[in-house]
Amino acid sequence: MSDTTPELLASNKCFGGWLKRYKHTSTATGTEMVFAIYLPPQAQTEKVPVLYWLSGLTCTDENFMQKAGAQRMAAELGIALVAPDTSPRGTDLPGEHDSYDFGSGAGFYVNATRQPWSAHYNMFDYVTEELPALVEQYFPVTDKRAISGHSMGGHGALICALKKPGRYRSVSAFAPITNPVNCPWGEKAFTGYLGDDREAWKAWDACELVATAKEKLPLLVDQGEADNFLDEQLKPGALEAACEAAGHPLELRLQPGYDHSYFFIASFIDDHLRHHARALG
Amino acid sequence: MSDTTPELLASNKCFGGWLKRYKHTSTATGTEMVFAIYLPPQAQTEKVPVLYWLSGLTCTDENFMQKAGAQRMAAELGIALVAPDTSPRGTDLPGEHDSYDFGSGAGFYVNATRQPWSAHYNMFDYVTEELPALVEQYFPVTDKRAISGHSMGGHGALICALKKPGRYRSVSAFAPITNPVNCPWGEKAFTGYLGDDREAWKAWDACELVATAKEKLPLLVDQGEADNFLDEQLKPGALEAACEAAGHPLELRLQPGYDHSYFFIASFIDDHLRHHARALG
Repeated sequence: MSDTTPELLASNKCFGGWLKRYKHTSTATGTEMVFAIYLPPQAQTEKVPVLYWLSGLTCTDENFMQKAGAQRMAAELGIALVAPDTSPRGTDLPGEHDSYDFGSGAGFYVNATRQPWSAHYNMFDYVTEELPALVEQYFPVTDKRAISGHSMGGHGALICALKKPGRYRSVSAFAPITNPVNCPWGEKAFTGYLGDDREAWKAWDACELVATAKEKLPLLVDQGEADNFLDEQLKPGALEAACEAAGHPLELRLQPGYDHSYFFIASFIDDHLRHHARALG
Repeated sequence: MSDTTPELLASNKCFGGWLKRYKHTSTATGTEMVFAIYLPPQAQTEKVPVLYWLSGLTCTDENFMQKAGAQRMAAELGIALVAPDTSPRGTDLPGEHDSYDFGSGAGFYVNATRQPWSAHYNMFDYVTEELPALVEQYFPVTDKRAISGHSMGGHGALICALKKPGRYRSVSAFAPITNPVNCPWGEKAFTGYLGDDREAWKAWDACELVATAKEKLPLLVDQGEADNFLDEQLKPGALEAACEAAGHPLELRLQPGYDHSYFFIASFIDDHLRHHARALG
């Protein structure tokens, strides 16, 4: 249970429901954190299930709510949407604000073990435990949860679902970093947050986690074929091979012509919302 | 006919069609201008009609395409979307960049008559003549046109349709500045662009134009009741009274709880697209 009531920052009516931004004090990160929640019209009279959305590098809670166009279908299906920020804010650790792919806006949804990051960069605990507990305490939602995300947040969604059996009814991802232990973004982030022992990194890598996952939650993944980061950073083929080896169900959809932008996400978000709605019942 | 081929700046696949940004040299403004065009999938095999979207204060061509979620329904209906910028750019006139509601990002869709603005701030000619001519020359579109917009751009859409009978098949607006000669935003802009003679302002005011409009094109207007600018700047009641006095068809929809944001626009853009699709055939 959270000991601080979230403070309302902004509120907009949207598709008959309400989009709200809140600030609260987080135990996991030791900072204030901002998140956005979209409550569909159904939440005015009953508790609704929640889709958690994890955003990519440089994003905040705002990008998804402004650009994905997800509220329309969420209102139709009666699903709440929750979008956390992508890292702690308000700290000033050495080098924290120097690059777009490490530190601020690049928390990578791990629990950091290396100083000074471990004092604050515990985004895994934040998004899987603290935030859902707070959301379920203060808002008209059930404990039925789904999770999705984009790029770094796609990686986040996959590892949250794979590391927390029973916690999510469904998972999906757009252009996820599938194999961070083997790509430049992941190597930089994991070295910084977790240290030089590459064995320790494997606990935060979807391809590694699929091999030992107890719960075979089907993975829905959309990947644009014109994505600039496809071969070097995202590597959908690695996830495909890992799932095949482990017998883990994967629906990998390669979308011709689509890039890494929110225009790609908007084009297919309805499919993902329907996928989650089926699992959320 | 334009003498300069538009230069492609960016391209994103979206809902099976393509969103593209272009730069070109404008005769009307004497500057380079940027616009965005969304070509739905149908445009790959046939010419499609066009909805022009005029944005509000501080916006560029990007806000609508990123935040309104219009491409989904445009792709379904087979309508191209064109979003111009909201003012000339790249000039440095006295005071041009000093306030959000005059000069840069605030062209108000008039042809300025006052120096130094008259050399560049001819957004009315640009959006009603030069840009459609260029779009119809270089892209797979028909000469069936519709127009819509938000706030300052809602005012723009209404005056473009009212001042150019026969040019548009349909018109709609979100939270338009209906009576700029009688509100602070309009008074500031018209004084600057048109001078102190208030009689001259009337040629750019929807409520005034309705009184003498030869073509009774029905106006569809959505207005959020929780819009902060409702009473002081937007004045839907003035438009309602003017239309009633003139016998001009108006569907004014007051939407409880909605504000001035793109979340309001996104919530009702599909209705507007269907309205335009019916008129565009």
